[in-house]
Amino acid sequence: MKTLTGVGSTPLSGVGTARWYRPEAGLTLPERPDPSAVDPDAELARFADARDAAREAIRDARDRAAERVGEEEAAVFEAHEQFLDDPELVGDIEAAVEDGTPAEHAVRDRFAAAIDQFEALDGPMAERADDLRDVRDRLLRVLLDVDSLVDVRDLPDGTVLLAERLTPSDTAELDPDAVAGIATVAGGRTAHAAIIARSLSIPAVVGVGESLRDIEDGTELLVDGEGGRVVADPDAETRAAAEGEATSAVTERVSTADGRPVEVAANVGSEAELGPASERGADGIGLFRTEFLFLDREAPPSEDEQYEAVTAALAAFPDDRVVVRTLDVGGDKRVPYLDLPDEANPFLGRRGIRLSLDEHCDLFETQLRALLRAAASDGDADGADDADDADGEGLAVMFPLVSQIEEVEAAVSAVESVAADLDAEGVDHAVPELGAMVETPAAVFLADRLADRLDFLSIGTNDLAQYVMAADRENDGVAAYHDPLHPAVLRAIDRTASAAEETDAWVGMCGEMAGDPAFTELLVGLGLDELSMSAVTVPAVKERVREVDSADARDLAERALACETRAEVRELLDG
Amino acid sequence: MKTLTGVGSTPLSGVGTARWYRPEAGLTLPERPDPSAVDPDAELARFADARDAAREAIRDARDRAAERVGEEEAAVFEAHEQFLDDPELVGDIEAAVEDGTPAEHAVRDRFAAAIDQFEALDGPMAERADDLRDVRDRLLRVLLDVDSLVDVRDLPDGTVLLAERLTPSDTAELDPDAVAGIATVAGGRTAHAAIIARSLSIPAVVGVGESLRDIEDGTELLVDGEGGRVVADPDAETRAAAEGEATSAVTERVSTADGRPVEVAANVGSEAELGPASERGADGIGLFRTEFLFLDREAPPSEDEQYEAVTAALAAFPDDRVVVRTLDVGGDKRVPYLDLPDEANPFLGRRGIRLSLDEHCDLFETQLRALLRAAASDGDADGADDADDADGEGLAVMFPLVSQIEEVEAAVSAVESVAADLDAEGVDHAVPELGAMVETPAAVFLADRLADRLDFLSIGTNDLAQYVMAADRENDGVAAYHDPLHPAVLRAIDRTASAAEETDAWVGMCGEMAGDPAFTELLVGLGLDELSMSAVTVPAVKERVREVDSADARDLAERALACETRAEVRELLDG
Repeated sequence: MKTLTGVGSTPLSGVGTARWYRPEAGLTLPERPDPSAVDPDAELARFADARDAAREAIRDARDRAAERVGEEEAAVFEAHEQFLDDPELVGDIEAAVEDGTPAEHAVRDRFAAAIDQFEALDGPMAERADDLRDVRDRLLRVLLDVDSLVDVRDLPDGTVLLAERLTPSDTAELDPDAVAGIATVAGGRTAHAAIIARSLSIPAVVGVGESLRDIEDGTELLVDGEGGRVVADPDAETRAAAEGEATSAVTERVSTADGRPVEVAANVGSEAELGPASERGADGIGLFRTEFLFLDREAPPSEDEQYEAVTAALAAFPDDRVVVRTLDVGGDKRVPYLDLPDEANPFLGRRGIRLSLDEHCDLFETQLRALLRAAASDGDADGADDADDADGEGLAVMFPLVSQIEEVEAAVSAVESVAADLDAEGVDHAVPELGAMVETPAAVFLADRLADRLDFLSIGTNDLAQYVMAADRENDGVAAYHDPLHPAVLRAIDRTASAAEETDAWVGMCGEMAGDPAFTELLVGLGLDELSMSAVTVPAVKERVREVDSADARDLAERALACETRAEVRELLDG
Repeated sequence: MKTLTGVGSTPLSGVGTARWYRPEAGLTLPERPDPSAVDPDAELARFADARDAAREAIRDARDRAAERVGEEEAAVFEAHEQFLDDPELVGDIEAAVEDGTPAEHAVRDRFAAAIDQFEALDGPMAERADDLRDVRDRLLRVLLDVDSLVDVRDLPDGTVLLAERLTPSDTAELDPDAVAGIATVAGGRTAHAAIIARSLSIPAVVGVGESLRDIEDGTELLVDGEGGRVVADPDAETRAAAEGEATSAVTERVSTADGRPVEVAANVGSEAELGPASERGADGIGLFRTEFLFLDREAPPSEDEQYEAVTAALAAFPDDRVVVRTLDVGGDKRVPYLDLPDEANPFLGRRGIRLSLDEHCDLFETQLRALLRAAASDGDADGADDADDADGEGLAVMFPLVSQIEEVEAAVSAVESVAADLDAEGVDHAVPELGAMVETPAAVFLADRLADRLDFLSIGTNDLAQYVMAADRENDGVAAYHDPLHPAVLRAIDRTASAAEETDAWVGMCGEMAGDPAFTELLVGLGLDELSMSAVTVPAVKERVREVDSADARDLAERALACETRAEVRELLDG
């Protein structure tokens, strides 16, 4: 038994048989010919063809990833397409080709320079180098006419995949039923490949270092993504402990050590994610993203199609609450048939509820019809009346990007008008719980009023941090600003939770922050009633909730709110 | 004597001689020829040439406006250039030309359609129609080879200019010394032309309606921009009253009726604005924008050039405070030689202090050297020691877009390091008052800590409203969200002022909101110690401050903070 340590990336464990994945092995370049022997025009044409083929492959990968993993994770492939079109990179490669360099050498050289540049940067930017490698390898595979040596889509059951590093493309193709785990020499927890592995619930340890290279194909390996270790030839005890953990999904609801209940729910972005969320013991769905019903198609979904999707979610969680977010597009999420305007600052533009109340109120009405009908399909509801779901069961509906009370008034009145229409038509329906996402600072400042008027608030930390800090969450140039542990963001969360506490409304969180067990005590201390996250982290957070003491948690929160910098907050949480 | 009413746009009065400006008179199109008689290729070439000529004229206008009026106001011409390049508009015109329409008819027809579309919209979008007219007329003037009938740059002294509507281009060319006033048939207070007239301190009444057309050239007119009226052949009493008002600049500092002092300062964006600010009785400069020193040139200004500019401001206000904002570029303000990256959401990107602390720390250091030297040039300062300016005199320096305490630490440490360098070099210097702009929600949430560490806070309502509401202040599609009277924005202002109140720091406001006398009582009630605005509104705000009772103001503020919608706040202020 030999133990290697790395960075736990997906907090799950798995045991299987090691198999090295060496995509780079096939990508050996032929010797560089004399420039005079190179036909620049022919090489330029080869490069152009390779770009076309790579673009097609990237788009296919995007679509498959959107379906298999989720729209959010699939967005990385849009970045890949941008690398393929980067004017500087393409220009440099073409210039080298014109000077007599064969296309594959020009691609390798110029990408190597770009990869070096990214790796010289600190933080999340450095991890973009993996995306560049991914694009480079796609181009080289076309230019050298080689396929991957290992087809990652067709691995034998029980494979533990070992690699120098995984690309997002490869990872998105993995079959979670076949792959028992992933371990890599390089890479970080926030790299795109690691995020995709987490979404697929594949146990993963990254950044193990060179010692991983000594593991041979066929070795039996335990990948312990919680403990951040890879164990070769694990003994029975170690295996049993890991397997015990692997099946430790807590299906019942949990409370803190002193008895305060905290709902631990799952975020899902497709029907395919409902099963895994249920298996991992989620107390319902805290964020059901409805965009998957609208994206990648030519026309909006019908009322019935939406009804079916929502009732499927309710059926998967018959005793729990399912919180459906109404259509949240605009910003970085474009829908071809909606004809959204180009905006200089799309994250500060027409997004979320703004579109639903205005030019796309027809879509909103159709969605509300589907939702009110689905609310009645819930066994609890009694048809025409409000579904009184203070018991944490049944359908709840929340509106994204609320920033004015006027919007809540308009949305509630749209719900009432749809209810009246359904009444008149004699269609079975119920009014679900209604809530608002707290994503804008305006919603924080008005949280008392929102909580007065609605059944619940759900804090979306990704957007909230973006607006509080005035820092685009997708702009690596301001990545240092974009940290939910920043005291300003914590104070915004505190103001929201405190405002809700004085009302009957419950308050949850469905941003990424909610899924990190390292933050659970802090969030309980800030007064959140519900935490919603990727299904994969539900067991770890449930376990953490049970250990928390409410009074200690409140004390921790007070100390965090008194911090001046995020470094102080991190230190406090680590201490 | 005959009185017409309209919307007061520049709150000043002037008396002069009416002179109609009819730029549209020269733009009569020739009769439309038969399509078969039109040579599409020749017409396409004429259109292309006209676009080139118009583009050049727009760029010239931009540069002149930047110099004469200010960088902020000049930005409208960048929007004009965008209209000139709008793919839909240009495509439609070219398509019409290809079908046999002469270029001028195609321009007129397609712009008419676009103008109609804009005018059908509510609110500020409708006023963009004037910008389209401006661009259309530029194109038609080239195509028809006509000059304006009246050269607005060379009007006789004492002209009151009458027009159907004024374009931003025309207004930016007016000579404030020659033009005694402006009155227009159409147009609103927030149109670009009105904003420019305000910046130039030209009395203006807009939207008078068709009755204005009855005024003939040569009539003696009083334009009363405060009362929103135009008086033909005013009697001696009316003239005297208006002239009395026109010279009523209050030069001494003012207090509320119950004796609470409120500083009323001016925002300036060029050295040329210092004189008018002083004449209008500003209690110093509350926002000295330094961008004019950096824009429209090939290389950054030298330390001495910056020193001269700042000492000129101190010399213009020897007994007052001059608050200089360090370089605030990025976002919508680009500087060619700084090589700023393109960003998907520039308002959420690398702007303000973020750039000064990072890739442009060399520029920041040079600016700080100039500022610390200038601080010592102030008679009050004693050379090497801190300039103790709690008396509201001398230089103060503020940092834009602060969102983390870490930034304040880094900025203060840069100041200390520059002071040490100057010490070592034996250069006379002093450390000015230091403060932060409160523009991000993060700064609001951390205002207590900022006020602890700094001498003052200055709230920038334009950006603050943008981030609180998550609504781009330049995106007309979300203009309804962008209102500083929104309760969420008022609560953010309140939190900032309350946090500062518990410290020794003073708190001011330098956004547009500060310059509207209708908001003065509310802002005094929210606890602001200083209001800084366009020089032109200083007298009206000073007058208003003297009428305010602090206790009533606090009561008004409490009621405004309890409002749920901006409509309620407006009603409260109107009531």
